[in-house]
Amino acid sequence: MVMGGGRESGGMAAQAGKLGVVASVAINLAALAVYLRRRYSGDDVAGGRKREEEGEELAVAPSSGKPPVTPDSVINLDHGDPTMYEEFWRGDAGERATIVIPGWQTMSYFSDVGNICWFLEAGFEREVRRLHRLVGNAVAEGYHVLVGTGSTQLFQAALYALSPPGAAAAGAPMSVVSPVPYYSSYPAVTDFLKSGLYRWAGDARTFDGETYIELVCSPNNPDGGVREAVLKSGTGVAVHDLAYYWPQYTPITEAAAHDVMLFTASKCTGHAGTRLGWALVKDRVVAQRMNKFIELNTIGVSKDSQLRAAKILKAISDGYDHAPAVGDRTRLFHFARRKMMARWGALRAAVASSGIFSLPDELPGYCTFAKETVAAYPPFAWLRCEKEEVYDLEGYLRECKIVSRGGAKFGADGRVVRISMLDTDEAFAIFVDRIAAMK
Amino acid sequence: MVMGGGRESGGMAAQAGKLGVVASVAINLAALAVYLRRRYSGDDVAGGRKREEEGEELAVAPSSGKPPVTPDSVINLDHGDPTMYEEFWRGDAGERATIVIPGWQTMSYFSDVGNICWFLEAGFEREVRRLHRLVGNAVAEGYHVLVGTGSTQLFQAALYALSPPGAAAAGAPMSVVSPVPYYSSYPAVTDFLKSGLYRWAGDARTFDGETYIELVCSPNNPDGGVREAVLKSGTGVAVHDLAYYWPQYTPITEAAAHDVMLFTASKCTGHAGTRLGWALVKDRVVAQRMNKFIELNTIGVSKDSQLRAAKILKAISDGYDHAPAVGDRTRLFHFARRKMMARWGALRAAVASSGIFSLPDELPGYCTFAKETVAAYPPFAWLRCEKEEVYDLEGYLRECKIVSRGGAKFGADGRVVRISMLDTDEAFAIFVDRIAAMK
Repeated sequence: MVMGGGRESGGMAAQAGKLGVVASVAINLAALAVYLRRRYSGDDVAGGRKREEEGEELAVAPSSGKPPVTPDSVINLDHGDPTMYEEFWRGDAGERATIVIPGWQTMSYFSDVGNICWFLEAGFEREVRRLHRLVGNAVAEGYHVLVGTGSTQLFQAALYALSPPGAAAAGAPMSVVSPVPYYSSYPAVTDFLKSGLYRWAGDARTFDGETYIELVCSPNNPDGGVREAVLKSGTGVAVHDLAYYWPQYTPITEAAAHDVMLFTASKCTGHAGTRLGWALVKDRVVAQRMNKFIELNTIGVSKDSQLRAAKILKAISDGYDHAPAVGDRTRLFHFARRKMMARWGALRAAVASSGIFSLPDELPGYCTFAKETVAAYPPFAWLRCEKEEVYDLEGYLRECKIVSRGGAKFGADGRVVRISMLDTDEAFAIFVDRIAAMK
Repeated sequence: MVMGGGRESGGMAAQAGKLGVVASVAINLAALAVYLRRRYSGDDVAGGRKREEEGEELAVAPSSGKPPVTPDSVINLDHGDPTMYEEFWRGDAGERATIVIPGWQTMSYFSDVGNICWFLEAGFEREVRRLHRLVGNAVAEGYHVLVGTGSTQLFQAALYALSPPGAAAAGAPMSVVSPVPYYSSYPAVTDFLKSGLYRWAGDARTFDGETYIELVCSPNNPDGGVREAVLKSGTGVAVHDLAYYWPQYTPITEAAAHDVMLFTASKCTGHAGTRLGWALVKDRVVAQRMNKFIELNTIGVSKDSQLRAAKILKAISDGYDHAPAVGDRTRLFHFARRKMMARWGALRAAVASSGIFSLPDELPGYCTFAKETVAAYPPFAWLRCEKEEVYDLEGYLRECKIVSRGGAKFGADGRVVRISMLDTDEAFAIFVDRIAAMK
């Protein structure tokens, strides 16, 4: 069975949408279309059907994220809300990514009872593998693909899978570490349930145990640094958080091939609200235990999100494989890279104009995807204040109505903050103006 | 902003789909439609657009759940996979529940920054409240609505919210209890992370502490019993799991108004793959802490699932509010009740024919929704074997290629098993035939 009425309608919708084009060719066809719309647009009681009319209030309207900003607004760049990408998906690529889900589809808990990840949609797995082949940022061949409710859930699944089941009984939870500055959520998510299996043990550079899970985020959240594991003990294991290892943020220098690699749609495509992450896992037993976590935690992962993410990843790959290269309109990584370059240029100019801030150096490298040497444009700015008297930069910026995340949350000092570079054009422009004006 | 291109296309799709009707009225219009389809169905390179043609292989095909059964198949009724409902959603109601999500929609993490549950889609909340008003099974007015990745996530959120934050430090995790037979997932989900905040403490009837969380599942999974809290200590709290408190399963006898009430689309509408649950929570602080759990666990809940669930719940309510009552085709609860009644009738007949089994008694009651006295038809059969020598009914049934869940997992004995009553017609019919033949 290959889909049904709903998708069929979707295909016809595209044609119906082209009636405007027809009008310029033969005006009588357009007139007929208007006739058809009027004639058949209301309730069709005999058929028991009803469709909302265009222009009529929709009963289930989707949210649009944070409210729009004005020049006097508080600008919230605390979270990495990737609304920068909306512009791309409103363009040509957007129509390819539209999804239609009929009411009867994917109702079962199960997607493939023969797969370790029995709730993984085959179409999503296929597009994940295809995208990694296209970009060359990770080896997917020979790896198990797991799906999670964002990479946050997969991160917890990895902690569960890599901690010995007897750790709690022995009173010796696994130590979870990462070098400072580390992603602020790592300690909170590791410790919020006070698990007996694992516990946050802080900075990997000062850790002196033999058994641990090291979280390697590369490029690193918050500072964009390219990282390798700093601990090398034979009994330690690493989890690679590669959420930002995409060509818009950093040169792709090799196809990563670590034991556990985590990715998320949020930072690759900009679809944070879809809450879809995936893991590439080498070892079968680790994959099974990670899957067990997701089974116990949420009995699988939204299939609607998986179907949508599959369509979105497909649109990205198709944009490179099939579409004529007309600017960046169909090429996500090129679009996003151009945006990031412009934003980093604007921010560095504002920082120079202000004179009281500093930023990490720009790191160039040869990108195997772009096939040229390019600079890194991290998704977060790790902004430091050089003024002697500013000990609490988060508070200092808040006085200028800029909400950032203070360094202490990342294990660093208070003179530095993390700023999202992925918000809307409007919010980013106001932020840059304010930074330039601070003396 | 009220939706955009995609939804507009959806509206037009419905009209385009009616071209067949037009044909019977004026054949030339149908001919024109064919012309339009052929003329504008391929790639439109100039516009940069492409749509899959009807009949063409879809690049992202959805899964269809467990494989179809044959008379020789293993029949797996271990999980409560609600595929029985697919028939309803393939019918008239299905078209109303079709959802179209354009590529640019709901990309942000945020839905409503002013809501405690900042990732809750307003349209979903509205349809949840409307459905409870329609059915009268729970008081939603004055309650906070939270959304979760299935009610399983909300169950864990409730444990987190209701356990004192200092429990772990004091070495005194909160005791989590439920009367035997209890839902088999309660102990597993409570204990899998060895949390210091809470731990499974077994049968509520034999528990003698003063501080606890009692899980009250009513109608009860696995045995369908109507339940109230059995513990009454002043310092204990109850969480009401009302996943099955819908009119197809049990008479609606009152609008429940407990402190924390959990629901899930899986068992109400049959959309298990959508992984969408909700909670009605009286206390603001409890709601905030539950939300914090979801924020840390998965940074929110799939918006695609929320939008789809909103559309599905809307189709259910509309089926009662607006549609002419043409049989059960547009009335979900009537459809499902008729199915459950037929299945329970068939199972009771098979049990009588076999002579070696027993089932719980049928419990009638006055249903305020149906406005008549009706019997209960639980979603699971709690099947007992009366043969002396059968100590392990799960294993005994497995010899007949019936997969069930043994009583021990529910805190009960091995002579009883739980059987899902919500599988496909085909699987259920084979199961009933096999039961009838067992002597």
